[in-house]
Amino acid sequence: MPSPLELHAAWVYTGDAHSDLLKDHTLCVDENGKIEALIPSQEAPRDPRAQQVELNNHLLMPGLINCHGHAAMTLLRGFADDLALTPWLQDHIWPTEARWVDADFVTDGVNIAMAEMIKTGTTTFSDQYFFPDSTAQAASDAGMRCQVNFPLINVPTQWASTPNEYLIKGLAVRDKFKSSELISVIFGPHSPYSLEEDDIAKIATLANELEMGIQMHVHETKSEVLHAVEINGERPIATLNRLGMLGPHMQCVHMVWLSKDDIRAVADSGSHVVHCPSSNMKLASGACPVNDLLKAGVNVAIGTDGAASNNGLNLFAEVRLAALLAKLTSENPASLNAKHALHMATLGGAKALGLDNETGSLEQGKWADIIAISFDDASMQPLHNPISQVVYAGHGAHVQHSWVAGRHLLNDGKLQTLDEAQIIRRAQAWRGKIASNANPTKSAKELA
Amino acid sequence: MPSPLELHAAWVYTGDAHSDLLKDHTLCVDENGKIEALIPSQEAPRDPRAQQVELNNHLLMPGLINCHGHAAMTLLRGFADDLALTPWLQDHIWPTEARWVDADFVTDGVNIAMAEMIKTGTTTFSDQYFFPDSTAQAASDAGMRCQVNFPLINVPTQWASTPNEYLIKGLAVRDKFKSSELISVIFGPHSPYSLEEDDIAKIATLANELEMGIQMHVHETKSEVLHAVEINGERPIATLNRLGMLGPHMQCVHMVWLSKDDIRAVADSGSHVVHCPSSNMKLASGACPVNDLLKAGVNVAIGTDGAASNNGLNLFAEVRLAALLAKLTSENPASLNAKHALHMATLGGAKALGLDNETGSLEQGKWADIIAISFDDASMQPLHNPISQVVYAGHGAHVQHSWVAGRHLLNDGKLQTLDEAQIIRRAQAWRGKIASNANPTKSAKELA
Repeated sequence: MPSPLELHAAWVYTGDAHSDLLKDHTLCVDENGKIEALIPSQEAPRDPRAQQVELNNHLLMPGLINCHGHAAMTLLRGFADDLALTPWLQDHIWPTEARWVDADFVTDGVNIAMAEMIKTGTTTFSDQYFFPDSTAQAASDAGMRCQVNFPLINVPTQWASTPNEYLIKGLAVRDKFKSSELISVIFGPHSPYSLEEDDIAKIATLANELEMGIQMHVHETKSEVLHAVEINGERPIATLNRLGMLGPHMQCVHMVWLSKDDIRAVADSGSHVVHCPSSNMKLASGACPVNDLLKAGVNVAIGTDGAASNNGLNLFAEVRLAALLAKLTSENPASLNAKHALHMATLGGAKALGLDNETGSLEQGKWADIIAISFDDASMQPLHNPISQVVYAGHGAHVQHSWVAGRHLLNDGKLQTLDEAQIIRRAQAWRGKIASNANPTKSAKELA
Repeated sequence: MPSPLELHAAWVYTGDAHSDLLKDHTLCVDENGKIEALIPSQEAPRDPRAQQVELNNHLLMPGLINCHGHAAMTLLRGFADDLALTPWLQDHIWPTEARWVDADFVTDGVNIAMAEMIKTGTTTFSDQYFFPDSTAQAASDAGMRCQVNFPLINVPTQWASTPNEYLIKGLAVRDKFKSSELISVIFGPHSPYSLEEDDIAKIATLANELEMGIQMHVHETKSEVLHAVEINGERPIATLNRLGMLGPHMQCVHMVWLSKDDIRAVADSGSHVVHCPSSNMKLASGACPVNDLLKAGVNVAIGTDGAASNNGLNLFAEVRLAALLAKLTSENPASLNAKHALHMATLGGAKALGLDNETGSLEQGKWADIIAISFDDASMQPLHNPISQVVYAGHGAHVQHSWVAGRHLLNDGKLQTLDEAQIIRRAQAWRGKIASNANPTKSAKELA
């Protein structure tokens, strides 16, 4: 059980409905890891039993929520870049996954991903990958909050062979982590095109009955939408709507190619959208129409996607890019301002994951999922506006502290629950294995 | 005079025409700060008079070249965001500049800008701002390579009143720094719309006679191009071409709105383009058609623009964004690969500034303008491809060493020629002055 905390900060961004920015406030965290109070620092109790943390030139804010990724794929970071989607997947990613992915791959990949995420301000992440029990265990061990979407796909892998086997194994992961305060387990049907309608309908029914969330890749590429129209006579979102998949428990990832009817269906159903700007740009998928979705009243969250298509898991970089991309595509520099972009990565993210009663803002009774960002760097000065600074400047490099449920995960830039040196050694070992198998004759020079 | 150096690196990216990536090589720098040799580390002389630097898990590469900015405006970082261009300039930036810009403002602003640039891998920057003598002096004092474009504009400022006075004062700056090995001074006519044709023609003539470069904002916004057509009957690039401004000495910045004829004129003349992706996205100006320019044979470099419209000066972030934006706009993920994007920020940048015989690649006889990037961080692992890693991952946060002309500017992440704590104190003092004047009644909360 962590000790109580008193965090005395120069600036506090609550991220709640009022999105207050407060000067010289103290956040008190109880011994259960919950937020107890947020008060002017001059009124702070300075209880000797509480750990006192002085944050004299820092912004204290809710930890970021990375709503989409494949953490284990961090082991394939930079493995195959600058390629069209089909050769990227078919010639590089899929064969490598088929050869190497197992429980150890997932544990080691997730650990390196979490190291990067914690150091760049993420406290909660959503993840969809094979061996989700390994992901859940690694997150639980490191003390990160994690929503595991166990995969469902009509392609056999090392983890499961049929959609039914995926389902049984996935629900077993849910049972295993039922009592965890950090781990939630939901359905992760891969995409409308990689499952039969019967299986999708079954997931919709089960999700309703079990009150579980669903996260799915939807309308990522133009060709996927056109192909669906050709073979099904309707757009994938119409299919999902017909099958009962849409609703407040539904997290639609990517959502690049959307008609007005698609946006209306998503808005009317209360489904959430997870925007992954770097991945969509790098794979040339397009740009999610964030402004149109927001105007229609849709809750939009942000994700990094996997490191194989990003190639980092720095959510601050995604927040900045989301704001810039919204301005570019709308031809309006006032679109998606800094505060709104940050909301998408905090309370908006929590809402998408159904965790907005637990985390996403600094409010009494929520878990103390908090980060402190230092302004003691030239790139963060002068400080005209703390929110603008963390969104547009600094690129997430100045996260100095992180707590999840009051547990210190990052202390003065050093990981507290993960051994970074060991993680790097294991990443290097995987690199050697994967590279030797991928192309044993390629020299370092050719790899450039 | 710096001591000779032997830099023993795990990876070396030369950035020359062959763009070699070498494993386990040593770069030898002579006592004049020039590159003497690049040899396999096992053959390194390990001369006891030379400083030995072990870079066992690093990439050694040419320092980045930031080809466009307004360093002093770093003091206005985050001062006014998420606004349309006209109120941003007219209600916020220009009145604040009119009230505060003087030689001290420029010195302090340039120092904070250089601190950020050095820490994120830039060794050469191009700058256009008032009091260019202060910029040149600050860069010279800090040991950075700098191309100063002294401003020419038909708007009176604290520095000069008429285009002729700008010209006389600018040429005096050139004379003052003529013997500097770090500072070059060129013409910085602001834009086609802010000068009369006679003045532009005079600059074209003088630039030819004096063999000086020119840097100018060209075709940044759609409205600027449409307005020119309306009042002049031709597009600004046609006007510049008619007046003799285009040519290998010409650096056209932004270049967002381009017709096929515009691209042809730029390509035929051998003019260079400086792409500023963040600024163009943040101000919703649009996207420079980089792929079309490259296809036409134009040399394209990269700039951050000023911190008031970016809001950082981290050129690695711009390199990554340039690659992502080119893929998005061309709908082709193979567009502008990592190596090419990096070239734009190194040798391509040097070429644009006319400094490619001096810097931009690790070649014998060039200045030792070098950076070393560490891979000892979770976000930089595993290391399948060093070039991909520095372009797409890490966001420029892992630059550990920097040398300009062999002088150590950054040693293990610490600035060697600038006092960062003092720079931050001065930035804070400016922040207080500017904020009190800008809106004395605004509370911190409202500023969010």
